[in-house]
Amino acid sequence: MADSIYANYPPALNPAQKEFLVRTVKDWATQNGLMVRPAPTFVSKESDPHGILATNAPVTLFPSPFPKTCFEEAKALQTVYNKLYAAITCNEEWIGKIMEDLIDVDDFISNLWKVHVAVQREGYVQTLSLGLFRSDYMAHTPSTSTTPELKQVEFNTISSSFGGLSSLVASLHSELLDSPLGSPMAYPPHPLLQSNAVPDNTAVETLSAGLATAHVAYGPSKSQPQLPTCVLFVVQENERNIFDQLALSRQLSNVHKIPVFRLLSSEILDHTFIPGSNPLRPLIYRPPHAAETHFEVTTVYLRSFYTPTDYKSDRDWEARTHLERSAAIKCPTVLNQLSGSKIVQQVLAAPTGPDHLAAFLAGTDEAVISRLRSTFAPQYDLSLSGKGRELALNPSTASNHVLKPQREGGGNNIYKTAIPDFLKSIPENEWKRWILMELIHPPAAAKNVALRSDGEVLAGGVIGELGVYGTILWDQKDGNILHNEQGGWLMRTKAEGVNEGGVATGFSSLDSIVLY
Amino acid sequence: MADSIYANYPPALNPAQKEFLVRTVKDWATQNGLMVRPAPTFVSKESDPHGILATNAPVTLFPSPFPKTCFEEAKALQTVYNKLYAAITCNEEWIGKIMEDLIDVDDFISNLWKVHVAVQREGYVQTLSLGLFRSDYMAHTPSTSTTPELKQVEFNTISSSFGGLSSLVASLHSELLDSPLGSPMAYPPHPLLQSNAVPDNTAVETLSAGLATAHVAYGPSKSQPQLPTCVLFVVQENERNIFDQLALSRQLSNVHKIPVFRLLSSEILDHTFIPGSNPLRPLIYRPPHAAETHFEVTTVYLRSFYTPTDYKSDRDWEARTHLERSAAIKCPTVLNQLSGSKIVQQVLAAPTGPDHLAAFLAGTDEAVISRLRSTFAPQYDLSLSGKGRELALNPSTASNHVLKPQREGGGNNIYKTAIPDFLKSIPENEWKRWILMELIHPPAAAKNVALRSDGEVLAGGVIGELGVYGTILWDQKDGNILHNEQGGWLMRTKAEGVNEGGVATGFSSLDSIVLY
Repeated sequence: MADSIYANYPPALNPAQKEFLVRTVKDWATQNGLMVRPAPTFVSKESDPHGILATNAPVTLFPSPFPKTCFEEAKALQTVYNKLYAAITCNEEWIGKIMEDLIDVDDFISNLWKVHVAVQREGYVQTLSLGLFRSDYMAHTPSTSTTPELKQVEFNTISSSFGGLSSLVASLHSELLDSPLGSPMAYPPHPLLQSNAVPDNTAVETLSAGLATAHVAYGPSKSQPQLPTCVLFVVQENERNIFDQLALSRQLSNVHKIPVFRLLSSEILDHTFIPGSNPLRPLIYRPPHAAETHFEVTTVYLRSFYTPTDYKSDRDWEARTHLERSAAIKCPTVLNQLSGSKIVQQVLAAPTGPDHLAAFLAGTDEAVISRLRSTFAPQYDLSLSGKGRELALNPSTASNHVLKPQREGGGNNIYKTAIPDFLKSIPENEWKRWILMELIHPPAAAKNVALRSDGEVLAGGVIGELGVYGTILWDQKDGNILHNEQGGWLMRTKAEGVNEGGVATGFSSLDSIVLY
Repeated sequence: MADSIYANYPPALNPAQKEFLVRTVKDWATQNGLMVRPAPTFVSKESDPHGILATNAPVTLFPSPFPKTCFEEAKALQTVYNKLYAAITCNEEWIGKIMEDLIDVDDFISNLWKVHVAVQREGYVQTLSLGLFRSDYMAHTPSTSTTPELKQVEFNTISSSFGGLSSLVASLHSELLDSPLGSPMAYPPHPLLQSNAVPDNTAVETLSAGLATAHVAYGPSKSQPQLPTCVLFVVQENERNIFDQLALSRQLSNVHKIPVFRLLSSEILDHTFIPGSNPLRPLIYRPPHAAETHFEVTTVYLRSFYTPTDYKSDRDWEARTHLERSAAIKCPTVLNQLSGSKIVQQVLAAPTGPDHLAAFLAGTDEAVISRLRSTFAPQYDLSLSGKGRELALNPSTASNHVLKPQREGGGNNIYKTAIPDFLKSIPENEWKRWILMELIHPPAAAKNVALRSDGEVLAGGVIGELGVYGTILWDQKDGNILHNEQGGWLMRTKAEGVNEGGVATGFSSLDSIVLY
């Protein structure tokens, strides 16, 4: 059934239709801030020394079809997923045990764990923890099945991005579907596009409301005399995806009336401090452009520090520790970041051994737990002899699997028949850095047309990944949940055959959906 | 008094303050569509073959001070000015007489007049006429005076631009004034910026409402069978200021729910037609991307055809005639465009001869007419021997004057002591193409800092020009006025010493105001 939906979609474009659609999308993106800073391979530093130029985010011309049942299920499960990852984060001992094995082989995990241990030793002064999560799925549509199933690709607990731009893509495609009003014809006629609509996308509202909730929950300034308070976005240098982040800060300042500042992770120690004399350890921000005005940071939102390259020296680890030990609510804490490692996903999905999922979700309806469990793709540990190793080393079974580093974040996946040779090429004691996951089969006939950030238009087969956003604020001390919401989504569409690549690289595009 | 206001403004910026302000303005512009397409001198066609890159519109970092009395007076007089230019446009005989002299020496005026005469001969089928006007002023602050006076620079009756971007600059400066909420410090402290606000700028709402009013006044489709109706924006090729125009079309489609299309002036004859069999002469638009769907154009909004270079061949004049003879409401008609010539402004301001102003504004309060008259700077005809020639040829009096071509639109002005030599260098029978205007003296001490479209930041003395928008819909047959509104403004700030240059050239910037 899915194949018949995708077979004739999207409708073909003649040259005039293509010209109109590309021009409209291009101009709309610029008018509405659906933008990125251009890649240095497209615009060199020499040709734009002040970094003033901008270009559209890579975006599909059409929304992609997505099964309605899968979309509804992903939304329905999000607050349960939020709860699950909050509960995992509260169980320091459990995370510690899982990480133990990795600490020898993974410097990044090891250093993160050390930050937590150091702050734990001194004692945390902030027990509230904020999660801005995104759970990524595919509509699993194997040729043997007639009903698409929702399968989780990964769960993001840090720097879950694209909420800002994704809301804009939904607006763009919505306007195109209805344009002009009364006589829609921006798209050629197609049954999937007629009397259909892109679902509401409240990612900006949801994510900002999460940050605002933490800001309020922080309570009054802990300084004497009291200081004005703010939210701090900790960001990377030369961030090309800045307009995605600014969509959230604009909402925070304009709607929630909360001051927001941006600070490079490399400059945290220059512009923030914790007064040694204050045992409450408030995090004080001194804006470099108004150094006499001090702000107390209620909430630190990390859009950096999620990948090893964000830590260039010990000073960066010192900065991360500095944030962690402060009274600011972290989004996320180190522990919450670690809970998003692939290995946690694998342990939860393990078909044998203790039922961690049921334990973490104690008190949740059995049927809901079972629905959540059925979003897991089969995945295996390679640290021990067993089924995972067997599947990975045999080329015929490997061909239906992907090998992923257990760390959060895309990159460096090994696919199918390349797996056995890859494993043989690395020392066996490093195998525990990897997990083996059964391949998810998105609709094979899916196609779309994308406008890249350099203006090239590419058409062809695509793989779509749906992310659903959720926010949760909980007390790490007793697991008490103060706020748990779901809202907003991301459709990311990659050109078929491109196994990797964030949206920012131009090999994958922001998209939206029409349900079927 | 004015000088003391400007003397210490804007506040000085240290490097960190400048870095913050420039970065904030740059990112805000991109996030909110305060954008232009980059000049080919900055981004070459080769480096961006698809024309996908965009950059911020040139914009000042600070709002500029402007006298409150002048601002209020400009707003108060706008609907009177609207009425005046509608009345002038209704008096074909009067305009014809004024143009008569120019027809020999000015091909552009002559060709426009011919379009009108040809359509007049056939008979106009549309008597409604829409004006989207902008009256431009300076705060005249001669060293001899203590009170600034409002003096008109020019009155625009065609393609009055920058309403869309100007509203955005007002929002940008407003946000900066209040940012962050509760502890504003985006700007260094300064009395003019404290507890002050940028006045509301409703240019987008006002101009779009004008177009929407015409659309509604057009009434039902005149085709058999009836067609869906639309507004048509007629635009130039490679328009760099497209986002200014899109701000109006977005408002028309999203708020007024009116279909809007853009069409290059060079493609009018390819994609529109007037059915020969329909004596009502509806203008039919065939969108190239959906040629089977026809729309009837209620309102033609010209953002092209205002300057000689928009007419590259007879085919363009044919296209202009085609629009003019159609049933669509023109914004503007040829006659209304001609009424905006500098020579009309000069005739109205002439200190001797018949009181045209009082005649056109018959029925208007004497005091209001006199207030309007006092916005005229002294200006003189050079076609005859008399005071104008005397003032222009004597270097000592010329030094307080500017020589302007009588045609609408900036460019080619001759300043001060260059005037006598210039006049002597051209044949005397061409002098009638020029008018002499006494110089307006804006505040001499005014300064600002501008972020150009190429990212350069320039600081220095500036000259500010305030434009006020107005819209009017009237019946050319009897002068009956159906709609007459004022709303929205533009502050344009030029670097001192730069006599010419539209905003798009980067020598002048979009600005906003704080009143004093």
